[in-house]
Amino acid sequence: MADTISRFPVAELDDLPADLRERITAIADRSGFTPNVFRALGHRPAELRAFLDYHDAVMERDGSLTKAERELVVVATSGANSCTYCVVAHGAILRIRAKDPRIADRVATNPWTVELTDRQRAIVDLALALAVEPATFGAADLDDARDAGLTDEEIWDVGAITALFALSNRIAHLTALRPNDEFYLMGRLPRD
Amino acid sequence: MADTISRFPVAELDDLPADLRERITAIADRSGFTPNVFRALGHRPAELRAFLDYHDAVMERDGSLTKAERELVVVATSGANSCTYCVVAHGAILRIRAKDPRIADRVATNPWTVELTDRQRAIVDLALALAVEPATFGAADLDDARDAGLTDEEIWDVGAITALFALSNRIAHLTALRPNDEFYLMGRLPRD
Amino acid sequence: MADTISRFPVAELDDLPADLRERITAIADRSGFTPNVFRALGHRPAELRAFLDYHDAVMERDGSLTKAERELVVVATSGANSCTYCVVAHGAILRIRAKDPRIADRVATNPWTVELTDRQRAIVDLALALAVEPATFGAADLDDARDAGLTDEEIWDVGAITALFALSNRIAHLTALRPNDEFYLMGRLPRD
Amino acid sequence: MADTISRFPVAELDDLPADLRERITAIADRSGFTPNVFRALGHRPAELRAFLDYHDAVMERDGSLTKAERELVVVATSGANSCTYCVVAHGAILRIRAKDPRIADRVATNPWTVELTDRQRAIVDLALALAVEPATFGAADLDDARDAGLTDEEIWDVGAITALFALSNRIAHLTALRPNDEFYLMGRLPRD
Amino acid sequence: MADTISRFPVAELDDLPADLRERITAIADRSGFTPNVFRALGHRPAELRAFLDYHDAVMERDGSLTKAERELVVVATSGANSCTYCVVAHGAILRIRAKDPRIADRVATNPWTVELTDRQRAIVDLALALAVEPATFGAADLDDARDAGLTDEEIWDVGAITALFALSNRIAHLTALRPNDEFYLMGRLPRD
Amino acid sequence: MADTISRFPVAELDDLPADLRERITAIADRSGFTPNVFRALGHRPAELRAFLDYHDAVMERDGSLTKAERELVVVATSGANSCTYCVVAHGAILRIRAKDPRIADRVATNPWTVELTDRQRAIVDLALALAVEPATFGAADLDDARDAGLTDEEIWDVGAITALFALSNRIAHLTALRPNDEFYLMGRLPRD
Repeated sequence: MADTISRFPVAELDDLPADLRERITAIADRSGFTPNVFRALGHRPAELRAFLDYHDAVMERDGSLTKAERELVVVATSGANSCTYCVVAHGAILRIRAKDPRIADRVATNPWTVELTDRQRAIVDLALALAVEPATFGAADLDDARDAGLTDEEIWDVGAITALFALSNRIAHLTALRPNDEFYLMGRLPRD
Repeated sequence: MADTISRFPVAELDDLPADLRERITAIADRSGFTPNVFRALGHRPAELRAFLDYHDAVMERDGSLTKAERELVVVATSGANSCTYCVVAHGAILRIRAKDPRIADRVATNPWTVELTDRQRAIVDLALALAVEPATFGAADLDDARDAGLTDEEIWDVGAITALFALSNRIAHLTALRPNDEFYLMGRLPRD
Repeated sequence: MADTISRFPVAELDDLPADLRERITAIADRSGFTPNVFRALGHRPAELRAFLDYHDAVMERDGSLTKAERELVVVATSGANSCTYCVVAHGAILRIRAKDPRIADRVATNPWTVELTDRQRAIVDLALALAVEPATFGAADLDDARDAGLTDEEIWDVGAITALFALSNRIAHLTALRPNDEFYLMGRLPRD
Repeated sequence: MADTISRFPVAELDDLPADLRERITAIADRSGFTPNVFRALGHRPAELRAFLDYHDAVMERDGSLTKAERELVVVATSGANSCTYCVVAHGAILRIRAKDPRIADRVATNPWTVELTDRQRAIVDLALALAVEPATFGAADLDDARDAGLTDEEIWDVGAITALFALSNRIAHLTALRPNDEFYLMGRLPRD
Repeated sequence: MADTISRFPVAELDDLPADLRERITAIADRSGFTPNVFRALGHRPAELRAFLDYHDAVMERDGSLTKAERELVVVATSGANSCTYCVVAHGAILRIRAKDPRIADRVATNPWTVELTDRQRAIVDLALALAVEPATFGAADLDDARDAGLTDEEIWDVGAITALFALSNRIAHLTALRPNDEFYLMGRLPRD
Repeated sequence: MADTISRFPVAELDDLPADLRERITAIADRSGFTPNVFRALGHRPAELRAFLDYHDAVMERDGSLTKAERELVVVATSGANSCTYCVVAHGAILRIRAKDPRIADRVATNPWTVELTDRQRAIVDLALALAVEPATFGAADLDDARDAGLTDEEIWDVGAITALFALSNRIAHLTALRPNDEFYLMGRLPRD
């Protein structure tokens, strides 16, 4: 039932302004289903549009951070924030991007000690510091990231993704956003 | 010096795409100066544009939450997150919107116990719960807000502003964003 | 490789005393594989034997707590403790016991607010209080559980399972215990 | 009165299965009284038996960790967990094992900064990391322990004792287990 | 040795100004020894004098809070602050004032759940709220105390003692203040 | 109204003993107004007297810590403790002593990462460690301070000021002490 997707009214695709309907339809066509976040945020079309723009700006941007690395930031910080929608939905994307059916469960359950490459560890440590303890985030965190070889533009990318999902996690907690059933199994089986 | 505004390169107005230059110029004309957040985020124009759109969507939206109440959410959660830029800049705006030269210092220093009206207290409690402990945010928080008379649309507004400044605070921590000197005194003297 | 299962040497089945070899073989026959915890703890046969005995005493005991409810306690507290082995392994068992392919991810990611029946919520709240904040666990927690209809024997069961997995989670953290690959997919597909 | 020992029914020695009655009687004979933990856990004989076996496996094991060092782990982690029964009962044992009438109060009150030898400090730091913050326990903690000269078998011992008392502390909190009066003074006077 | 009492130089009685020498001598005559806090703080006579005055003002004041209740506040908050000197020294005084050889160990180890009378529980809860989480201390804490029958003057007493030992605990942590050996056994044996 | 200064009765200057009336009058003459803390603490003249003596002993003492440095300790720790009275009142004094109209807002909002000189950073780090996490304060904190060039007497000064304001913050929280309106603007304008 529609009302279990969110604590608030959700949008039907037909209710959305044309530009949003078109964007969401394109995503739904690629995924095979409409991720619930779009129907829930669709309750406020202007907020949905800004969210999509911010998302594309940091997640689709050309740059040296790979798509799997970007999803790693999302899953690690969403795990630290206990955000079920983001862990389940982006966990699926991470499995696909990283071509690893088990990485998402490991990262989301314990981002602090999951075994990663040195570069991945530096990315995750930077993200966790900013996500969980923003008050004490500082120069030492940047120095650690640079020591691990991250460029300043990569550091910004990690920080901006962390910041966007600090927002996104809170929207999901606010709305009690339910993950689509389809996400749970995506990327777990050979060749999906 | 430009390089003390942010840890990252900052944009000059002339470097920005026309639409952003126009929006920032309009803000600067109203304020008498260009808030540093725009120059810092201008390093990534697409992110700045999405941020401005999200900001306008939740801060300028018509609705029953007053402008002072919206700034109250920003200052309370930014205080809880120890975010200097947001406390100083939005503290100035809160003083002006609330026509109260002392409210911002009190709210930012201790949002948990500052003396407020019952409606303000319900708004701030809801915002703090989502800002600081998202993992345990739940139905009880919404019930408390409804018991205090907040409508569901007002609850969304409080939540969405909290979420946006969870992002904004982290961008400020990431960049070590420096507040413009002008903010410190705004709204503290009679008739400014 | 054997050495990636644990930070410490792991036991081959043939190295174990006969009684343990027999017990582990029986489990492996049922599961189709030998859960890594037994090989890791097998480094200390006396500890493995006591662990198995404690496990059977609280997890296999006759009583009114269902097997799914027992696994719910394990997954909720292991999620709160960020214990990857226990979340992955017992998440698989919870999916099977509860006949619900999505419950484990939801409980492990956010045990505090996951939607549950009132009885399940009372069980999980009791378990989380004892797992995460033992110092302040007290009469009020028991009163809440009794108000929700739990009997004193059920309260003991919840507490004893929580206590055993406080131990188990720490052994897993100590050894960096790796979940068997088989667990990740168990109970996610129709009829497994 | 029996009912003040635990929130749950307690066992009389005569109610216990013969093997447990024998083991507890032997302990009582050595101590001069029956420690309450055995009567409280005796409510569930199978759990008591597994607990005694686990206890003996890690506390009585031959190895290079001295008996005083093992009790140091118990008192430090039980102090960090604010567990009155374990602090009072094992504090008594620590005083006796360490032949120091003041060490238990100092360790239990502040395990983080109590003055210890370097080896004791390494043992306590390892134990506290695993007891209090299991989610972030990792390779760095083991490295610190190894740098201080602990062998891997000693590290396992410290970890296993910490894990067992994570269980034991929670059983004591669950049952509101009352320390026997006799423990408070044991080891405080010359030659007891 | 003098240098193990404190990280800083300690005063000999003869070094102190006459008024302090007289006060400390009177205390030492009553106790049978000179509590180390006086020698450590004696390094700064003006601070020692103000400390003694504050102490007498809140601990010796006429009023309805009994001396045992005042020590209960000290031991509970010092336990919560893991302050070894204050727990050991005031634990001794509490045992004597309350004529109970076991109360101090129980209160210091777990002030949150130790079994107390309703009035004692209200006193300790008020003290812990102010000691440990001052930022969120507020009207609700006072209401709880009043509901339990505390007068406003008693509430002030509890608060002022808590505040003084917030200072005192930090001086002890700063100086690594060592409790005199004599304190450990005081009040534990019949008729001392 | 007098009753909004504190939750408890406040003293009029004329009610105070002559010595206190004289001291407070001298302060009021210098400031142009009577800081509310003196009227609130005046409810208990003996406590006010001891507080003034302690304050003068650590804040007015001759020594190498400058007056601005002393206020830096007060504002940093009061910010960490979310103490509105102390942040507002001592923020004003810090602005004046440091001749910097913006330093207090920056230090109070985020003492952990505010940009300071190395010596100021060492002072603030030492103070925060003792103020916020006294249980783990230890030799490493002193070593860091010494490495930054602080003498042992300066370390004591920082610690003693931190300790006094741990007390002072809690008195302010206890009484809901309201800052005088005059403080908010002091030191913000050229030449006040």
